Amino acid sequence: MSRDSAEFMPHPDTWTRRDLLDLESLTLDELTTLLDTAFAFKQATDGCRRKLPLLEGKTTSNLFFENSTRTRTSFGLAAKRLGADTVDFTASSSSLSKGETFIDTAKNIEAMNVDVMVMRHHTPGAPHLLADHVDCAVVNAGDGTHEHPTQGLLDIMTIRETRGEVRGLTVALVGDIAHSRTARSNIWGLRKLGAHVIVCGPSTLVSRGWEEFGVEVAYSLDSILPRCDVLNLLRIQFERQYTRPFPSVREYALLYAMNADRMARAKKDILIMAPGPINRGVEITPDVADGPHSVILNQVTNGLAVRMAALWLVAGARDKLRQSICRGPAAHG
Amino acid sequence: MSRDSAEFMPHPDTWTRRDLLDLESLTLDELTTLLDTAFAFKQATDGCRRKLPLLEGKTTSNLFFENSTRTRTSFGLAAKRLGADTVDFTASSSSLSKGETFIDTAKNIEAMNVDVMVMRHHTPGAPHLLADHVDCAVVNAGDGTHEHPTQGLLDIMTIRETRGEVRGLTVALVGDIAHSRTARSNIWGLRKLGAHVIVCGPSTLVSRGWEEFGVEVAYSLDSILPRCDVLNLLRIQFERQYTRPFPSVREYALLYAMNADRMARAKKDILIMAPGPINRGVEITPDVADGPHSVILNQVTNGLAVRMAALWLVAGARDKLRQSICRGPAAHG
Amino acid sequence: MSRDSAEFMPHPDTWTRRDLLDLESLTLDELTTLLDTAFAFKQATDGCRRKLPLLEGKTTSNLFFENSTRTRTSFGLAAKRLGADTVDFTASSSSLSKGETFIDTAKNIEAMNVDVMVMRHHTPGAPHLLADHVDCAVVNAGDGTHEHPTQGLLDIMTIRETRGEVRGLTVALVGDIAHSRTARSNIWGLRKLGAHVIVCGPSTLVSRGWEEFGVEVAYSLDSILPRCDVLNLLRIQFERQYTRPFPSVREYALLYAMNADRMARAKKDILIMAPGPINRGVEITPDVADGPHSVILNQVTNGLAVRMAALWLVAGARDKLRQSICRGPAAHG
Repeated sequence: MSRDSAEFMPHPDTWTRRDLLDLESLTLDELTTLLDTAFAFKQATDGCRRKLPLLEGKTTSNLFFENSTRTRTSFGLAAKRLGADTVDFTASSSSLSKGETFIDTAKNIEAMNVDVMVMRHHTPGAPHLLADHVDCAVVNAGDGTHEHPTQGLLDIMTIRETRGEVRGLTVALVGDIAHSRTARSNIWGLRKLGAHVIVCGPSTLVSRGWEEFGVEVAYSLDSILPRCDVLNLLRIQFERQYTRPFPSVREYALLYAMNADRMARAKKDILIMAPGPINRGVEITPDVADGPHSVILNQVTNGLAVRMAALWLVAGARDKLRQSICRGPAAHG
Repeated sequence: MSRDSAEFMPHPDTWTRRDLLDLESLTLDELTTLLDTAFAFKQATDGCRRKLPLLEGKTTSNLFFENSTRTRTSFGLAAKRLGADTVDFTASSSSLSKGETFIDTAKNIEAMNVDVMVMRHHTPGAPHLLADHVDCAVVNAGDGTHEHPTQGLLDIMTIRETRGEVRGLTVALVGDIAHSRTARSNIWGLRKLGAHVIVCGPSTLVSRGWEEFGVEVAYSLDSILPRCDVLNLLRIQFERQYTRPFPSVREYALLYAMNADRMARAKKDILIMAPGPINRGVEITPDVADGPHSVILNQVTNGLAVRMAALWLVAGARDKLRQSICRGPAAHG
Repeated sequence: MSRDSAEFMPHPDTWTRRDLLDLESLTLDELTTLLDTAFAFKQATDGCRRKLPLLEGKTTSNLFFENSTRTRTSFGLAAKRLGADTVDFTASSSSLSKGETFIDTAKNIEAMNVDVMVMRHHTPGAPHLLADHVDCAVVNAGDGTHEHPTQGLLDIMTIRETRGEVRGLTVALVGDIAHSRTARSNIWGLRKLGAHVIVCGPSTLVSRGWEEFGVEVAYSLDSILPRCDVLNLLRIQFERQYTRPFPSVREYALLYAMNADRMARAKKDILIMAPGPINRGVEITPDVADGPHSVILNQVTNGLAVRMAALWLVAGARDKLRQSICRGPAAHG
């Protein structure tokens, strides 16, 4: 079955990266390969329900220095669907408290023959630093306020799945842009794919600097709403804010929450997305979250497909790399 | 192997429930199907030692909002013996702290294609609420002081295994009836199967209200002891009590602990059970806990069989339901 | 494949122990069997990269009453490489807080048909006590300051792997000997295999009593350095010390840290080892830790091989024992 699966899904020549660290540095071809692979995996596995044991015998590791439920689980399940074993590390149980450096912790885990290391860290750039020090593949599962590439990909996959094409769509990211790695990954990915991107929120949380990158900056949701094909409603990340960026949650909801009244003024086929966890009554009202325009739970399912694709692509690139270094057949085909 | 196993063990027509939420609402037929399946699984797997991969490719999720060692592990091992993958969630690591509702957390997990959700929650009725909002199967692993159906089943299975028949036996539940979901599940199950049930403990922890349901209420263990075929010694749940229900642990032990002296006055073939963890010297003395009448560790092993049966039955019912909704072949046979 | 693997690797007659509790009580033959098996496993699995499903269908349990990253993961991965399922228990999530005894917790886990119990406990002798009360196999993963047999074995395996032979080598254990279970396991193993062992560190952390066991005691690293073939640099275990055993970390590093200056005065082929996690700048400087003489990460990989060997040997011995008790075929071959 492993052999058949491998034939069914050959590793694409358009993917040569050993790591997936961000969307900013990806080419359009690479971005498309990632998305195409995710769609192919979703179809081949009845919506990520069946297994596709392309990574049998391999080991992935979740190295999480920040708490996470859904991302860690999603990566873990994606690995299981591919037949890989997974080991979980969390900061609290790790040896960091014994004075070990972050790189030494990672190198120790790698020495247990881990093939892919999935990493979340509160410091922007930590996965990039890690990638310089290990031979295994590294996937960034969120580094501080910097990037969260698989979240960006699953958002984009959900748009493409529903609308067929990303090019030409107007996508607004609403809310706490300043602290959102999800926003950043969406911006790079959507721009490369030809979408018009608007960042919208209180001026304390949205920088004019984004205009330099071809992104529209808006402070009023109502003023941009009629033009939007997609709204991605970011959570207010209270846990990342040291100052109060707006007077009250109530005022925020009044200005930026998606509700029935705003839905009435939006395009008929508007897509409502949210990276979750959602705060009902803050950035979104329950009727909108559970309404027919919402694809919030599709995003979660697509997260599995995207992570299966990411794990498989980087593991394959890493095997090719090892093979060319060893100048012989790969350790395990 | 999966196909052979499936032939070996056809899904019974007498089971159509997608969820196992309590024993109170089960019919006698359903209760018997659960127990028969558990016995069949135990026998087919050399006492739950071998695998029976009837749920290969499926995913179960442990969603625990209360701490648990043995129940979570037992459900996890039962799933593994059936060949299913399992993902664990605990309240501390979950997104509840980020303001997400309990139902949203569950729906997110479900969107990762979880087939069966095993749930423990401190609020009575939480699994019932959950079952109304998800399409996957739900198994209650304990909801506050309400019910703990698989614990009730494993207790009953252990009685039937040892005595052949439950009907006609006198079973006393001793101790903290008021706070015990185990007691509640035992009462409903044992009554349906025709046992005479006595609840016995300090009047602060045993309500006269049980008499309405055909249950005998007693405050003195010594007075009922000679009539009992089975004693199920409940743990004093200090963590659930806001007031002191008895003057001292010593006094409790004096009146309700099973010890050598009371064993001498009990039936020759009395069965000593405890849902664990036991407090040696409180509800039971070490000589009784480790003595020949004790089936405490058999209960633990039977817990695996009962949970294998529960997971398999609800997963099967859910597949049938999906099949009839889709009006075509099930997504995975 | 399971059958083929079993043929490939027959259980050795020289191993009959159901438990691996320490290296002190092992015979030279048993020690050699453990090491030979670990080497055979490493070779047969491409350096522990491939699976060798000799324990398919079996369940191992990690019962850890002390925090651990690498040891718990290493045992878990070793079990997975052998095809076994693993269940994890940690003190915080366990029922100990509900008043259950340590032995009762273990017997409950055993009753879920666990075949091998891997245990870490802060109390010296806890695994030995456990082994007296359960029928499953027990592997000590560290008991207080007493022993850590698989750590001792992986250190010795790494020496034998690099130098071919342990006999005749001079091996110095440097640092906190008093609180180090790793030191103790190394001493017993290395002495049995014919190495000359030196324990070296501040007099507050190194007892003269070791001389009784044929071990050389030294307080100055510089004085023994020219004679050493291997240095095993132990971490200062701040978390186990109630008094200050030396004036400052700086002074400790000045006297006992392995650095470039000391490397220049050491043997040309000296081997630098450390059980990790390392404190860079305390017992070892970065240039030495990452230099050509360091085999620190090889130790981690060898840990997998040693733990695969240990799990497989004790599980096999336990099966033979069950078989002879049952006077019939084993429950699962």
